[in-house]
Amino acid sequence: MAEKIPTRKEDYSKWYNELVMQADLAQHSEVKGCMVIKPYGYAIWEKMKDQLDTRFKETGHQNAYFPLLIPKSYLSKEAAHVEGFAKECAVVTHYRLKSQDGGVVVDPEAKLEEELIIRPTSETIIWNTYKGWIQSYRDLPLLINQWANVVRWEMRTRLFLRTAEFLWQEGHTAHATAQEAIEETERMLDVYAEFAENFMAMPVVKGRKSESERFAGALDTLCIEALMQDGKALQAGTSHFLGQNFAKAFDVKFATKEGNTEFVWATSWGVSTRLMGALIMTHSDDKGLRVPPKLAPIHAVIVPIYKNEEELSAISAIADDLIAKLKKLNISVKYDDRDTQRPGFKFAEYELKGVPVRVAIGGRDLENGTVEIARRDTGEKQTITQTGLEAYIEQLLNDIQNNIYQKALNFRTENTRKADNYEDFKRLLDENPGFIAAHWDGTPETEQKIKEETKATIRCIPLNNEQEEGKCILTGKPSTQRVLFARAY
Amino acid sequence: MAEKIPTRKEDYSKWYNELVMQADLAQHSEVKGCMVIKPYGYAIWEKMKDQLDTRFKETGHQNAYFPLLIPKSYLSKEAAHVEGFAKECAVVTHYRLKSQDGGVVVDPEAKLEEELIIRPTSETIIWNTYKGWIQSYRDLPLLINQWANVVRWEMRTRLFLRTAEFLWQEGHTAHATAQEAIEETERMLDVYAEFAENFMAMPVVKGRKSESERFAGALDTLCIEALMQDGKALQAGTSHFLGQNFAKAFDVKFATKEGNTEFVWATSWGVSTRLMGALIMTHSDDKGLRVPPKLAPIHAVIVPIYKNEEELSAISAIADDLIAKLKKLNISVKYDDRDTQRPGFKFAEYELKGVPVRVAIGGRDLENGTVEIARRDTGEKQTITQTGLEAYIEQLLNDIQNNIYQKALNFRTENTRKADNYEDFKRLLDENPGFIAAHWDGTPETEQKIKEETKATIRCIPLNNEQEEGKCILTGKPSTQRVLFARAY
Repeated sequence: MAEKIPTRKEDYSKWYNELVMQADLAQHSEVKGCMVIKPYGYAIWEKMKDQLDTRFKETGHQNAYFPLLIPKSYLSKEAAHVEGFAKECAVVTHYRLKSQDGGVVVDPEAKLEEELIIRPTSETIIWNTYKGWIQSYRDLPLLINQWANVVRWEMRTRLFLRTAEFLWQEGHTAHATAQEAIEETERMLDVYAEFAENFMAMPVVKGRKSESERFAGALDTLCIEALMQDGKALQAGTSHFLGQNFAKAFDVKFATKEGNTEFVWATSWGVSTRLMGALIMTHSDDKGLRVPPKLAPIHAVIVPIYKNEEELSAISAIADDLIAKLKKLNISVKYDDRDTQRPGFKFAEYELKGVPVRVAIGGRDLENGTVEIARRDTGEKQTITQTGLEAYIEQLLNDIQNNIYQKALNFRTENTRKADNYEDFKRLLDENPGFIAAHWDGTPETEQKIKEETKATIRCIPLNNEQEEGKCILTGKPSTQRVLFARAY
Repeated sequence: MAEKIPTRKEDYSKWYNELVMQADLAQHSEVKGCMVIKPYGYAIWEKMKDQLDTRFKETGHQNAYFPLLIPKSYLSKEAAHVEGFAKECAVVTHYRLKSQDGGVVVDPEAKLEEELIIRPTSETIIWNTYKGWIQSYRDLPLLINQWANVVRWEMRTRLFLRTAEFLWQEGHTAHATAQEAIEETERMLDVYAEFAENFMAMPVVKGRKSESERFAGALDTLCIEALMQDGKALQAGTSHFLGQNFAKAFDVKFATKEGNTEFVWATSWGVSTRLMGALIMTHSDDKGLRVPPKLAPIHAVIVPIYKNEEELSAISAIADDLIAKLKKLNISVKYDDRDTQRPGFKFAEYELKGVPVRVAIGGRDLENGTVEIARRDTGEKQTITQTGLEAYIEQLLNDIQNNIYQKALNFRTENTRKADNYEDFKRLLDENPGFIAAHWDGTPETEQKIKEETKATIRCIPLNNEQEEGKCILTGKPSTQRVLFARAY
């Protein structure tokens, strides 16, 4: 038997872990830090992938695939990249096992001359490849995306949020001018924000990272930041303007229209299975998941409530008719007529899995030509006539999508506050975490000191930020705008 | 400048390699044995994936994701698996690098207690997980598929056909009875065969592997075998009945309806990016690729031939109209109005890339209300009126799909012969390779000797094979059916 899931108030962290496991989203594997993404969780990730992939292609990108393994020496070619990037990598040193005493051991004779690293990100191997692909301005822009697994060794892991292996996409583009690359960086941030808000129903703040939070090797890192229900922020996607750093490190030049030779300009951008964690923590409640209809593998479940075979058969006929009508509207529906579980068990199971709409059909409904509809977001139940039910459900799914977005937006609004001095800042953080908009003197030293003392970091400097005179909460030095602080995942 | 591609007669092997690279399908990376799949090649692979994935889901399977890294000890849990499976694996021994002298070195303090293997296939880690997923007959059948990258170290590699890292899908299912598992094994072989013939336009022989060619740990391996243009066979997909071997190795039992406890029955089945190699070698000619329309990223290309801007503008108007009409028919079309290349260059480029239909529009076409259509499969050109052109192209794409299948089928028929004695067998193999149907005494020793002497292996014992009395070509011992021999990739 599964353990009882605590409420969010009782133990937020355990609530999250148990929910992820019991809703069949993912589980830990026996390999330290690596997760198994279970079918229901993977089905949601596939929906995310499909939507993102469509948007990448609509904005002119093509998919490709680059090697999993990267020669160790590549990592040190871009100075800031190797300096700033985590060195917690899985290192391949041998290429053969041999049998011994009924088991297998590493064959010491099969040692690689140069160790290989499992990609923690692919800038280096991709830019090493682009050198051969880019000769002239005619080859630009080069707009490539890759869907892949990456590995970054982690000692303390949490399902979806921080795992040694995770799935992601990484876009890597090359441009003739800085301006074009900057526009691409912004364009892809907009793609992420639109996806997060319209599909994940998750409001995000678009912003710019401070220098110390930038991607190693980037000149500028844009991000989308979301607020989880425990008041901690989560970075949901990043888009980097890399300048000419990687082009210089891997010697990628192009002949301009005018006949000169110049280094190309680069971007990279990515989102990962971390979005699953963001989805869960944005919408779920103490009963379980609430999946936004636009990403739900199952939009509606039909549960028959019957006393005998005759009733079941009459209910099944109604269910079959409804399923056929819903399929025409691209609404995916599951009819759960298992005779091994009671209706109450089934209700709890689909609440746990966050299926947006539940349709229960019982003996009285047979008499009255009705069904009982329950919506997962509010828990409301209504008795509805069977005629025109499919249109009602279609509309309801739209309403649920909008409602959970609005609910999350209200939460963020309520939990975004201003602090004008360090005392208020610390008090707010401790009493009721969330985003705190505060003035900062712009120095890494101040940022570092606030982080050490409060565990809050600068999540971003919002794009199109309102300019106002103010004083840094820590140093009192002048500042022209507020930045968003929070404790973060 | 790219090297001239030799003809198939001149140098088949080099023809293949140059074609793969120059048609922008894939290239070698600097990481030994690992390839880069270029956007055009990846777009074809994506089409394959989509079709296969749809079929897997239609047959009740769900996707999931299991870890890339497998503890070394797992490999030795199933005796036949570890004994028979290639031990050429990438071995991860460390989890951290450190900076040293401006570069990075492996941190000797970050040595793993137990080495991890990059998955060469996932039976072991998946069955280790299934142990927690399966308790009762209610949990069965468990029908899971995974899309993933795998690594098998290879010293001699060929793009798509044999690479250290490749992309594939691996289905892993669990069943309550042997019969159900056997039916699943056959069902998925049928899915592969249907996909190969109807989408790849590649005829395949469905068959059973001899004992020595079976997957390590399987009781029975079914396969689809295709014949390449050089007369060598290529195994295009396999489906394994694993019996209870992995269930026993990983202790996966279930409570039956009757209340007993039994080990479950298993299958696994997979196809990989090797299918790209099969596609190329089945259909391509000395001018380049011929992509079956059902898998073509670009169905038709429109090339304008113009003397001045005015002509170009008139041609573009016609092209835009045609593109809009083709899009409604789900026909993907590219309008190549680059002014940096001549029409002849473009014609050669799309022939090389195997775009099924080319539409050229020139000055005379403007006068006559016509276009010139060239089909890639036959090279035929025809002048067609612009009215109703989209329906003509739609039909033409169907014709091309059927025609290249028929052509490949004819080739296979012509190159499948019978040999009734060893002399004939060897002569046929040397004069004109292909499938050779011959009697075999059923022993691994005979199979091995024939392989050593002729390099031909038993590709399969065809399913529903005609039974006939005969004598083994090597030993003269009695045999009841012919099996298919060939030299193979």
